[in-house]
Parts: sequence; C-alpha cells; structure tokens
Amino acid sequence: MAEQKATNVTWHDGEVSRDDRYRLLRQKGATIWFTGLSGSGKSTIAVALETALFNKSKMSYRLDGDNVRLGINKNLGFSEADRTENIRRIGEIAKLFGDAGVISLSSFISPYKADRNEVRRLHDAANLPFVEVHVDCSLATAEKRDPKGLYKKARAGEIKNFTGIDDPYEAPENPEIHLRTDQMTLQQEVEIIIEYLKKHEIIGARHYTRANDAPQPVAAAR
Amino acid sequence: MAEQKATNVTWHDGEVSRDDRYRLLRQKGATIWFTGLSGSGKSTIAVALETALFNKSKMSYRLDGDNVRLGINKNLGFSEADRTENIRRIGEIAKLFGDAGVISLSSFISPYKADRNEVRRLHDAANLPFVEVHVDCSLATAEKRDPKGLYKKARAGEIKNFTGIDDPYEAPENPEIHLRTDQMTLQQEVEIIIEYLKKHEIIGARHYTRANDAPQPVAAAR
Repeated sequence: MAEQKATNVTWHDGEVSRDDRYRLLRQKGATIWFTGLSGSGKSTIAVALETALFNKSKMSYRLDGDNVRLGINKNLGFSEADRTENIRRIGEIAKLFGDAGVISLSSFISPYKADRNEVRRLHDAANLPFVEVHVDCSLATAEKRDPKGLYKKARAGEIKNFTGIDDPYEAPENPEIHLRTDQMTLQQEVEIIIEYLKKHEIIGARHYTRANDAPQPVAAAR
Repeated sequence: MAEQKATNVTWHDGEVSRDDRYRLLRQKGATIWFTGLSGSGKSTIAVALETALFNKSKMSYRLDGDNVRLGINKNLGFSEADRTENIRRIGEIAKLFGDAGVISLSSFISPYKADRNEVRRLHDAANLPFVEVHVDCSLATAEKRDPKGLYKKARAGEIKNFTGIDDPYEAPENPEIHLRTDQMTLQQEVEIIIEYLKKHEIIGARHYTRANDAPQPVAAAR
C-alpha cells in the first residue's frame, strides 16, 4: 500500500454528485477487472464487451495493459515493485472512471493476488462495484495461441519474469465471474458479463432507464 | 519527459472509436486545465463549471489537486521532481478521460510552465483539446483569501516550497482563457469558458446535438 506523502490535502465536495452523473449516463460506474495469462483472451473480451455496451448506449472505456503502459505508466518496468505500482495506479484510475459514472474495462495480466485485492479494497472503500473476471485457460492453450510471440521469446530467455514461465500467476479464488475461454464462445463470455451487470443494476436498472426521466438540474451554490 | 521503460507493448485498436463515444455523449472530450495560485479560485470555478455543464446534460469530471493527491498520487510529495511527476500523471489521466469523451476539469496550482507544456504536448499528440485557463489574481488577494490557512503557515515557515512564497509561480504566456478572478463574477467566468467550449464545438456542435440522432451501432469483429 502506497504511503500518503502529501499533507495539507482535503477532499473537495462538488455540487454534482456521483448519483447525478449516474442519472445523466443512465448507468452506474463500475470497474470490470479482467485478469489472466497473456493470451488468455482478456483484450479480445474487453473489445467485444465495449462494443456490446456501446450498442446499448452504455458508456465504457478500456484501460489496456499495453496502452496504459505507453502513457501514465511509461516510467514503470516489470520488476515486482513496478508491477505492483502499475496495478495500483490503474486501480486508482479505474476508481476515478467509476466515480465519473463510466464502466471501465481493465485488461491486465495482474498476476498477483495481493495487488488485485488492494484494487478491490480501494473500490470497496469508495463504494464502487469491482467485478473481477478471471479469464482462464490453460498455460498450454495460451502458449499455443501466443498472439504476440511473447511465450516464444520467454522460453528462449529473451524476456525475463514472464508470467506463467518464470513468474507466477496467482489465480483468483472467488472472482465475480470465471470464464473458461477454451470452453466458451466470445459471445457467451460477453453475455455472461452483460447479465452480471444487469443483475447488479449497473446497467438496465429501471430507475436509470425510464423514458423521459431527464436529469434534474443541480442548483449552483451561488 | 518520463522514459519509456516497458518494452513489448503495442497499442490495441478497439471497434468503438473515439468519435463513436463523442456521438454517444453528444460532446467532444477535452481537458480544461485551470492553473493559478493557491486561493486564486480554481476549484470554485471548476465546481461551478461542472454544475453548468451538468445542467446542459454534458459529462464532465473534476480532477482536483487535493483528491488526486489522496489517490493515485499519494506516493508523491512536493519536491520539484514529485511535482513534475504529479502533473505528468494528471495530464495522462486527463488524456484518458478526453479520449473517453469526457470533459475533465483539472484544478491544480501547476506552477511550472514546462510541466504544463508537457501536458499540452501530450494532448496535441493525441489530437485532444487542451484548454489552459489562467486563474489569475494578485498574490496579495490570494493571500488575503487564504481559504485553507496555508499562506499563514507558509509565512510562518511551517510549510516549505509554497508557491508564491518560497517557490515560483510561472504564469502562462498564451493561455486559451485568462480569468482575472478579482475583477469578474463567478458567473462571468463560467460563461467565458462555456462560450469557448461552444465556439470550439466541444459542446453544442450541431452534429452532436441533433434530435433523434441516435448513435449508430458498431459491428462486432466476430
């Protein structure tokens, strides 16, 4: 857990609440956290889910291991400390998106249980839904797919600390959703997640979708 | 500029484009970057602007120096290097929100020109609007307001490296918007920004607000 260094900081309340944003977007903010081996199918599912949500006029945004690595986390490498800081920062960003009312789709290997649990704790403390999705397939299957040729490099010793080869993957024990990507179609996987989001009223809740239920204006303080 | 440490990373294209998100939200993403002394009025304007945008059914989200400091940047202090990293990370987060289609409202002292210009460069490279708003008032006025009692502590030597006292504030030379908060009402300030957003078609652009212009569905790749 990162130490709080800055002092003289306090939380500023605004006039527009999280619930106001939820009403505007007609959905609740949430974090869908995909975890699994490289090649397990995290990004593929995230892209398909993003499309499915968009076609329901729901607002989602993908945070991708690769594109975040090229931006905010470009100053982090793959040491254990840097991986932990990587996941911590992404968890904090996901939390901001959730507070904004957006459904963020995070697809990172995120191999360490403690790091994922810290992200869960952040969300629990902020009263935001955290949906851990274990994108599961055997190492043999992932290695056979090897869409980026990374397993081959790792086996050749060209990449060190590669999850599944010379670094552990700690599977979730009680994920909200467990997808066996070697036994399901992509469409089934997306439907399972959509059903979860409906069941938990993140999308489709009656009071967020009622026709003509325009957001009520918020009064300015002055 | 932070060094790119991670290798083997590439950008993942999705099926839902930034323009799709803009159509869904009926606005463009953008970063409104408030800069100015502590007590100049940054947070007050951001809160009022957020309310005004919400009442136009526009989606904004405030990134606040204080609340970001309690989250993603909790492991940063107030040294020059940490301040630079603080602003860099916030700039990257603002960029993500802009790409998502959200208008982010960042209110940070952000005293160093080079740091702000780096955030501007990030936005230019990503083809996202960066609206620098200089929230300007004299040091005497800011110190007289002293809403958090910080100038008093800085004058007493209890806070070191305090902008305006023993650390410089480098004013923007060509900000998109310059607000003299000791000469304007809050309502005037908000109207100036709203007019800017309309003029640059971030909000109110005809093709984003036409009635019954429902977002077109996006085809899934498979």
